[in-house]
Amino acid sequence: MPRPVILGIVGDSATGKTTISGGLVDILGEEQVTHVGTDDYHKYDREERKERSITPLHPECNYMDIIAQHMALLRENEPILKPVYKHDDGTFGAPEYIEPRPFAVVEGLLGYYTPELRDSYDVRVFLAPPEELRRKWKIKRDTSKRGYTEEEVHADLDKREPDSAEFIRPQERYADVVIKFMEPESGDLDKLDAQMILRESLPHPDLSPFLDNGDKGITLVEEDPDPYVRIPGNIDHEHAEEVQEAIWDKLHFASHLRSDKLGQFTVGDETNRSDTLAIVQLLVLYHMVTARAAVAVGGEGARSEDKDEGKDES
Amino acid sequence: MPRPVILGIVGDSATGKTTISGGLVDILGEEQVTHVGTDDYHKYDREERKERSITPLHPECNYMDIIAQHMALLRENEPILKPVYKHDDGTFGAPEYIEPRPFAVVEGLLGYYTPELRDSYDVRVFLAPPEELRRKWKIKRDTSKRGYTEEEVHADLDKREPDSAEFIRPQERYADVVIKFMEPESGDLDKLDAQMILRESLPHPDLSPFLDNGDKGITLVEEDPDPYVRIPGNIDHEHAEEVQEAIWDKLHFASHLRSDKLGQFTVGDETNRSDTLAIVQLLVLYHMVTARAAVAVGGEGARSEDKDEGKDES
Repeated sequence: MPRPVILGIVGDSATGKTTISGGLVDILGEEQVTHVGTDDYHKYDREERKERSITPLHPECNYMDIIAQHMALLRENEPILKPVYKHDDGTFGAPEYIEPRPFAVVEGLLGYYTPELRDSYDVRVFLAPPEELRRKWKIKRDTSKRGYTEEEVHADLDKREPDSAEFIRPQERYADVVIKFMEPESGDLDKLDAQMILRESLPHPDLSPFLDNGDKGITLVEEDPDPYVRIPGNIDHEHAEEVQEAIWDKLHFASHLRSDKLGQFTVGDETNRSDTLAIVQLLVLYHMVTARAAVAVGGEGARSEDKDEGKDES
Repeated sequence: MPRPVILGIVGDSATGKTTISGGLVDILGEEQVTHVGTDDYHKYDREERKERSITPLHPECNYMDIIAQHMALLRENEPILKPVYKHDDGTFGAPEYIEPRPFAVVEGLLGYYTPELRDSYDVRVFLAPPEELRRKWKIKRDTSKRGYTEEEVHADLDKREPDSAEFIRPQERYADVVIKFMEPESGDLDKLDAQMILRESLPHPDLSPFLDNGDKGITLVEEDPDPYVRIPGNIDHEHAEEVQEAIWDKLHFASHLRSDKLGQFTVGDETNRSDTLAIVQLLVLYHMVTARAAVAVGGEGARSEDKDEGKDES
């Protein structure tokens, strides 16, 4: 059996990691994807963190080497016994036996912190929404699903800020794909703009035929150090379909995966759909499926050439 | 760093595993020994086992492959994140980060159940006291330390008996050293006789100069299929010292380990000492120290030749 292909989705708390990964898992099929949240590798429970005045964002608060070890085991098609951290009460539960599957999605705060970890992924995504938007999301989630008051969430965010700045945000530089959802000028939070930095560490689909189709089209914004692609939240639906069509065309061997599940997201009990999110997810899915195809025919995956270069340099 | 040397102590519940290992750890120094109890690798908590009518003695109730994986990691000098099963309330707790040390003692019920597991040890000890004695020990421990009534312990033992017979006791055949503590004719439970089967899978110290010194001496009992050494519980103290002296002489490079901690055991709050237990422990310690010395000078450990033979045969 070829080794699993591993996608990393890294970003601060409430940056939309699960929103991105959910659609990908839906497309690939749950039974095809091993899902690992690195919060499970916290060293201390909530009580102990309070006593030690350490936040879960600090590398010292997590078994960084064991995360890398478990990823290496999965890459060798070995099962792992994953610890389980319970967000509802902040303690640890019975561990979970996880068998390798064709894909693994590893989500978390510090996934790119050590070189060993960074080398474990086939595709590295980093989520970097503006802090203002992230606060809104975190308040919404933590007051509704985790039982905190709005004041508690604000205080927690303030306490975590130094660690976010020191440990979490700097990881953006290691990503192949950086995704920033932004509030659009209209203020409509169901129609977020997306900015994507598509770094040369992976060969991305060519979007140039689709650029510059006006206000409701995709644009390439030249900015230092990284140019980014801007996909407006109100992208013209037909235009969005064309873009996706072109990417699916490159995934012709995987046409059975096509579905309308990309772009779906949930707010409260309501499920919405965004063409912008669909394109963002498809650009990530492209790399997972391509790497899987490469591995299946005996290749090293999408990143192999870059890895060798990296080794020569070091 | 040379790989850790791994001692297995396998036997049914309440066969004296901790009594044997405690003295060895005391001698080697706690900071030199990684201690792993394989009960931590139960798949189900106490409640779930009840629902499923499965006992912890059943291989299906334990992550057998993960135990072997973790032992392999320790042998490669890698740390592990060990699950934690809490005997006091029958649930799982926060996992424990364990770094490899020069020695590892792996205690449990099913340690020799799979070929993969059996190959992981440098020294394999199996404890096989008569069932009557084991019942006494289990009642004493489970009523005093684990909060059960005597009736509950009896019922539990009866429920477990089929699995003991099917899965636990047959493992005796794979041990290098089988230890049976027996009630002496005097009935004095502080002066248990010991019977030891010393199999040729490891080269044991030569005890022949010390055999046949009468009632209070060591004897070799020829029995099918395995002859055994009998060390009486009331062994003559000077004779016991001579035997130990001869073994320590073979461990001349480790004379700094000599201490009077061997042979100590605790009943309730009282600490006793038994020359018989001391000899039994020293015969096990001999193999740990010898294997460690072999590995430290680039060897494979005590079992290497047998292992090769085993491979040729299979």
